[in-house]
Amino acid sequence: MQLIEVDDPADPRLDDFRALTDADVRADRRGIVIAEGVNVVERLARSPYRTRAVFGVRSRIEALTPVLADLDVPVFVADKWLLSDVVGFRVTRGVLASADRPPPPSIAALLGRAERVAVLEGLNDFENLGALFRNAAAFGVDAVLLDARCADPLYRRSVRVSMGHVLRVPFAVLPEPWPGSLDLLRGFRLFALTPRAGAVPLRSVATEGRWAVLLGAEGPGLSDAALDRADVQVRIPMADGVDSLNVATAAAVAFAQLC
Amino acid sequence: MQLIEVDDPADPRLDDFRALTDADVRADRRGIVIAEGVNVVERLARSPYRTRAVFGVRSRIEALTPVLADLDVPVFVADKWLLSDVVGFRVTRGVLASADRPPPPSIAALLGRAERVAVLEGLNDFENLGALFRNAAAFGVDAVLLDARCADPLYRRSVRVSMGHVLRVPFAVLPEPWPGSLDLLRGFRLFALTPRAGAVPLRSVATEGRWAVLLGAEGPGLSDAALDRADVQVRIPMADGVDSLNVATAAAVAFAQLC
Repeated sequence: MQLIEVDDPADPRLDDFRALTDADVRADRRGIVIAEGVNVVERLARSPYRTRAVFGVRSRIEALTPVLADLDVPVFVADKWLLSDVVGFRVTRGVLASADRPPPPSIAALLGRAERVAVLEGLNDFENLGALFRNAAAFGVDAVLLDARCADPLYRRSVRVSMGHVLRVPFAVLPEPWPGSLDLLRGFRLFALTPRAGAVPLRSVATEGRWAVLLGAEGPGLSDAALDRADVQVRIPMADGVDSLNVATAAAVAFAQLC
Repeated sequence: MQLIEVDDPADPRLDDFRALTDADVRADRRGIVIAEGVNVVERLARSPYRTRAVFGVRSRIEALTPVLADLDVPVFVADKWLLSDVVGFRVTRGVLASADRPPPPSIAALLGRAERVAVLEGLNDFENLGALFRNAAAFGVDAVLLDARCADPLYRRSVRVSMGHVLRVPFAVLPEPWPGSLDLLRGFRLFALTPRAGAVPLRSVATEGRWAVLLGAEGPGLSDAALDRADVQVRIPMADGVDSLNVATAAAVAFAQLC
């Protein structure tokens, strides 16, 4: 690592970290991934993603030194005022890192190595998506596939809510047309998670062999077209009067039972 | 319901809804519960809590009319600017309701009716607490007990994240000293959820009879003193390299397996 003190908020070497407000996804559009906080920056450094630069206050950089020591990246140190000035909001976690977005893996290669897969339809909430990846990592899901309407799992807020685990679970976007591209999952038993009364309780499905679980967004749930593609519709038994769970929570319950 | 048009932000009849900023828990200290959004206001109106007043924009009040029609409460209608002016932030959900905080139930009465209980130690994050209550409602947990360090489940943000389900799951704060007051749970099999390697996988515990599951805050987890009180330490099997789940998610997985 190359430790560099910075004191000019206009320093062009800080451009990866400039104006990262929530309303602004430019950084992602440039293909840059942003990690926030000591734990997530550490997970980034240990992930297959190539770290571009680190930018933080001295105490957080010191906490990361064992992890960053062997990385050939610039590490910019500033006070918290300059850090927040560049980023565009108050950086409570004290440190950020940027990384290159790798080319997406081929779906065939990704599925070739996978036994347990999550497939997401229309999940456009960054936080739910991040939480879902955290849960996929926790339960050993091998890969996540997304339809084209899902949000970007590598957007800053997803990365943060995933606790950086989105950087360790391989994922890819399924090609159009959806849900026809689910045919790529040949050889996998396809479960569709739905609150419909006619669905089979999750606990009673057999989980031998390779499987994929289809999850839809909170509110609309899975489309009829996606439900029709499933081998089995499964549900999480719930108390009367409660219509649904948060989608990442439902995914965790499903992964825990299936894995 | 009595429909009342308001056009003066200083109208004292709106005091239940004044300056509800996140940094400010005064409303709660006055003993008032605040519900936000059509779905949560509807759950409040159908709950045992006594609604004091409703305040919202016309479209949301109209959506709620079937629910509010039989309630003897003032319903204040304003435009969105006045609504946000009184509340102190932009009210994206368009409607709020206030309710009286009921006297806490006696723990003996609460446990007398309960078969499945969650006991929380040191959960001081409003959103996690709200999410946990949503999950407790979903899986039919009969009661929630909290140690004195937990946050207030009836604070506005908890109520919102719980989707209003905190209003249907009975709860009480255990008396000091903690964890000695766990003795009140005599007759319940006490499970402690922990990531410790020596704990029994959740899936293999017997769940006949009455049980209570002890949950600690994300990060510190349960204290040794609380762990020592449990009949069985249980864990959720997780992939290598993932140290924990969000506490409300862990609770959902535990409730799903135990209920």
